[in-house]
Amino acid sequence: MNDTVSRMPLTVRMRRSPFFARSHAAGAQGYIVYNNMLIATDFEGAEADYRHLKRAVQLWDVGCERQIEIAGPDALKLVQLSTPRDIRRIADDQCVYIPTVDGDGCMTNDPVLVKVADDRYWVSIADSDQILFYKGVAAALKLNVSVFEPEVAPLGIQGPNADALVARVFGEAATRIGFFRHTRVDVDGTPMILARSGYSLQGGYELYFEGGDGSVLWERLVDAGQDLDVKAGSPCQAERVEGGLLSYLSDITPDMTPFEAGLGRFCHLDADTGCLGLAALRAKREPVRQVRPIEIDGDALPPMTAFWPLTSADGAPAGRVSSAARSWSYGLNIGIALVDRAHWDAGVALRVVTSEGERDARVLSGFPGRGSA
Amino acid sequence: MNDTVSRMPLTVRMRRSPFFARSHAAGAQGYIVYNNMLIATDFEGAEADYRHLKRAVQLWDVGCERQIEIAGPDALKLVQLSTPRDIRRIADDQCVYIPTVDGDGCMTNDPVLVKVADDRYWVSIADSDQILFYKGVAAALKLNVSVFEPEVAPLGIQGPNADALVARVFGEAATRIGFFRHTRVDVDGTPMILARSGYSLQGGYELYFEGGDGSVLWERLVDAGQDLDVKAGSPCQAERVEGGLLSYLSDITPDMTPFEAGLGRFCHLDADTGCLGLAALRAKREPVRQVRPIEIDGDALPPMTAFWPLTSADGAPAGRVSSAARSWSYGLNIGIALVDRAHWDAGVALRVVTSEGERDARVLSGFPGRGSA
Repeated sequence: MNDTVSRMPLTVRMRRSPFFARSHAAGAQGYIVYNNMLIATDFEGAEADYRHLKRAVQLWDVGCERQIEIAGPDALKLVQLSTPRDIRRIADDQCVYIPTVDGDGCMTNDPVLVKVADDRYWVSIADSDQILFYKGVAAALKLNVSVFEPEVAPLGIQGPNADALVARVFGEAATRIGFFRHTRVDVDGTPMILARSGYSLQGGYELYFEGGDGSVLWERLVDAGQDLDVKAGSPCQAERVEGGLLSYLSDITPDMTPFEAGLGRFCHLDADTGCLGLAALRAKREPVRQVRPIEIDGDALPPMTAFWPLTSADGAPAGRVSSAARSWSYGLNIGIALVDRAHWDAGVALRVVTSEGERDARVLSGFPGRGSA
Repeated sequence: MNDTVSRMPLTVRMRRSPFFARSHAAGAQGYIVYNNMLIATDFEGAEADYRHLKRAVQLWDVGCERQIEIAGPDALKLVQLSTPRDIRRIADDQCVYIPTVDGDGCMTNDPVLVKVADDRYWVSIADSDQILFYKGVAAALKLNVSVFEPEVAPLGIQGPNADALVARVFGEAATRIGFFRHTRVDVDGTPMILARSGYSLQGGYELYFEGGDGSVLWERLVDAGQDLDVKAGSPCQAERVEGGLLSYLSDITPDMTPFEAGLGRFCHLDADTGCLGLAALRAKREPVRQVRPIEIDGDALPPMTAFWPLTSADGAPAGRVSSAARSWSYGLNIGIALVDRAHWDAGVALRVVTSEGERDARVLSGFPGRGSA
């Protein structure tokens, strides 16, 4: 091991998804831990995986996006207490990105809410035990709900060939769903939720697989997608950074408000939602730091193992870089940074203090990958 | 990598403690992730570390035992809502092990509560975001508290020579505190809490270090302890298994009650504590499965990467093994198992289905290491 890569014994504490065995056998090169589960880092290397994702289709074992099931008469009320987004009238087939906040308006997670039925919701979480927030609120207010982790594991089907693969395996009708909408597809006789969503900008789906072993389904997808160049993959750092998909616990930390994370459009502060962070957020509408895309000059960057300080051109503190990657498609380095207000306008020159020296950088007007979605 | 050890890139998401740099430089051979922090697995190998812990003294970077600070007029009330243990009259210098539960009486963590002041407590947590439970309850009930993670990182000083080392560095008076009691010691002019506690049965302390860089203190302890054979270490699987120290998310899972975990003595169900899980626990006093020590026959065990099924001698399901290790001191293999009632009496013959074949096993009357505490 060295200072950027470690040896990690696999233990009982690291739960495996129904797709773990197949994904592992497909050649995962390493893992990190996410929601106490293992998620693969790469298969054929960062650049090869990135280029493949952009031209073909990948199967992602993202069982680490745990589901919190909230069921019962007070289910929607409980979810609404956790988010400033007004979700009181979402459609039956809708998925909704919901920043979740505490009583101070600070972010506790940034999940996707899936409406399963009028009194049944799944909160598909990023890396924090958001279930404990719901359990605490439900017990304190004696709400009429059950809050638990169901046996559901998302499988990502991501990339430009995802539509073709889904049509072959689940039928043409399944591909007619809109963005962040879902439908039921048949998996060995059991209906399961398939949504047009996922943690890439290349298009695709997430199948909410229910059951203990996903091997048969995985093989069916692999067999059906041979000429579509289907391969195992995992969320791609370079692709998600150039597309501005934020990561909870790096780009979004628990001390940040949705406004600081650039998620103000999901905060409905004038609606009477009941969100427990509403009063706090009303007082924090105008952030003094906010997430921005930046371009970082020079060749490929060193591995990032901790936040890199960001300074103005003359060395004054200006924020921090929380993610950075080589964008091979655009031929430059992209960073996601939390930038102080004095420095956050597009074009402002900055310096990034990487682990291997300083680099010139500048604020971009947008994430380059966002246009290609 | 193979099926029991993985490569893990170190990322921004994995927070480092004030002692990380020194512990890492001392030769950590690998890490696992715990509360989104890195904790070392071993230094000179499992057996060497185990034997050293039992004869000398080790410094453990256990910053991954995050602190939740709960401060304000309702602080004690909020903590009490989370635990069935009656903590309403704990002493000013007391640390208290508190199983925490949800509204169903199921365990959410198993932290140590440290009383810092009448209106100020630290909850020193195992591996779950217990802070979200407190934030949820506090916001829902509009309690007058602050709930946050302070800049505090525990340093373990564990082993039979811990008393001598603490006396040299913090003064003889510091060693006069009782078990699970604490005092203030001077660290570079700043008073910090030192408690007689820790995740081993070899005796020792936990220093609740406050500040950004623990390197100076680490070096002082190393220098003062040369002839005491002080070394870097980390929680020792073999030592804690033979001593029956349970681990949250392996031996204790979120579906278990404190009674199932063998923690019934900490459940004060007849007291009017207000614990949100009280009614549920009153209905669950008589578990049908419970944690038991078992002895497993044969040579050293294969690495355990998932629960091992437990059966009766004739093959009927009897529970699961959640931890297992070679106990070199006692010359046998010890397991921590969750055993069904029909099989949990001391002496009952069982079979363990390890990842490399079955082994004979039997229920023990107690953990062998418990006697040597």
